[in-house]
Amino acid sequence: MTYCVAMRVNDGLVFLSDTRTNAGVDQISTFRKMSVFENPGERVIVLMSAGNLAISQAVCQVLGEPAAGHAASLWSVDSMHDAARVVGEAVREVYRRDAESLQQFGVEFNCSFIIGGQIGTQPMRVFQVYSAGNFIEASSVNPYLQIGEAKYGKPIIDRVLTPSTPLDEAAKCALISMDSTLRSNLSVGLPLDLLVYERDALRVTRFVSMDNDNAYFQMIHSTWGARLRQVFSEIPDPEWSTIEALPSASVTALPPRASWPGIVHEPLAVQSVAQAKVRVQGPL
Amino acid sequence: MTYCVAMRVNDGLVFLSDTRTNAGVDQISTFRKMSVFENPGERVIVLMSAGNLAISQAVCQVLGEPAAGHAASLWSVDSMHDAARVVGEAVREVYRRDAESLQQFGVEFNCSFIIGGQIGTQPMRVFQVYSAGNFIEASSVNPYLQIGEAKYGKPIIDRVLTPSTPLDEAAKCALISMDSTLRSNLSVGLPLDLLVYERDALRVTRFVSMDNDNAYFQMIHSTWGARLRQVFSEIPDPEWSTIEALPSASVTALPPRASWPGIVHEPLAVQSVAQAKVRVQGPL
Repeated sequence: MTYCVAMRVNDGLVFLSDTRTNAGVDQISTFRKMSVFENPGERVIVLMSAGNLAISQAVCQVLGEPAAGHAASLWSVDSMHDAARVVGEAVREVYRRDAESLQQFGVEFNCSFIIGGQIGTQPMRVFQVYSAGNFIEASSVNPYLQIGEAKYGKPIIDRVLTPSTPLDEAAKCALISMDSTLRSNLSVGLPLDLLVYERDALRVTRFVSMDNDNAYFQMIHSTWGARLRQVFSEIPDPEWSTIEALPSASVTALPPRASWPGIVHEPLAVQSVAQAKVRVQGPL
Repeated sequence: MTYCVAMRVNDGLVFLSDTRTNAGVDQISTFRKMSVFENPGERVIVLMSAGNLAISQAVCQVLGEPAAGHAASLWSVDSMHDAARVVGEAVREVYRRDAESLQQFGVEFNCSFIIGGQIGTQPMRVFQVYSAGNFIEASSVNPYLQIGEAKYGKPIIDRVLTPSTPLDEAAKCALISMDSTLRSNLSVGLPLDLLVYERDALRVTRFVSMDNDNAYFQMIHSTWGARLRQVFSEIPDPEWSTIEALPSASVTALPPRASWPGIVHEPLAVQSVAQAKVRVQGPL
């Protein structure tokens, strides 16, 4: 299903996408999900896609070669908000063209996009565009957006990322988020595209396509896992000795045996770890 | 949506569930998802549920009070496999009773169960039962099962858990997995029910309901996050200096400006971190 993540921190923007597509487990391919629209010194706009590949490619085609009569294009819009609207309109155009035929084959019109960047002296902005062509924007309280297989990689971002996170740390966070996703879901795969945009640069200065040979990603992949296991082993295990120390009448703390068979026990809370309170739970 | 996880390691079984249910964000309640069927010295069977609460409660009711004429119940079955079949049959009975009416209200018959335990001298076994009443079993190569909001908490289990993991470490792993889920999804909430079953004990010796006051869970909650951020900061940030050291003609490594507007740049891979190779990517 792909996984793409974009982050907006004070110092810049991070865009990371994978390249795996699949039409079932026996049909896995590699297609780039990231497009860059750069007019050096004037604008940098990055577009990432997830969902049905034919739909997202069609949308990118519309965006890359706007039809005569369409005044607005990603090269000409005056603001990033208008850029998001242009993407939304492109999605709707492809919908008008293809949705009915897809329905006849039972295929859902499923696509999502992230578009972000900076135009001129305006602030950096990042948006997520839905299949319906409408969109939401990343903000200080929610400084990142994800599309595709987003859940596996969300916890680490929630723990670490804030708007004041330095740009390279944000990139590192995105890569770790991607690494967690790669380990847990086959529909996301290498190589990865990573673009780090420095605020007000108005040009692409940092881009890399990472495959299995990339030393940095290999370092993340092995080190993060090893350190996690180390931290895991250093955290104390639960202590259950207090249960065994209780008088036997309290050991199981379940209703007397006479109440079965046929009745499901209502488990009661017992003091099982240092300093935990003994509590009786309510009924099922 | 709930999150429940069960693990089968060599030394025993771990069962962990949350208690949050919701019918929309303004209707949040607390209901236990774990039921324990214990005949001390003979069997311990643990059942956890996720999905539509009315459906899962109806299934638990059927299991707790088997109708006359139904010979098999969780108290009488001879094997854990038969126990899983009994749960499957209970699901199908509730389906026959309720599915049509639910459909008339546009409600999907959505439920899933984990059932695990040990009967007599037989090995411990854990199963996951689907809405259709069929089921799968945990094994050595896949020593855990999850139901509900499973994705957030999956990466840590994938990194850490093996069949030889000590029992208390497995419990710790389950709690960390739950903690990651709690942070990232509102439909999962405290208190938690944790049952740790020691192999061949044939009785419940370790059970705790953890709420906000539980010292161990608080320790996990704060320590894991803090240590993760520490590990995160210790991992080196990417080094981009090699890009800036390249001749300016290679800095952007994108097609010459003459190819726009109207053409989307094909991003090229650039040497952006120590030892990364320079590669030219294929077309979009």
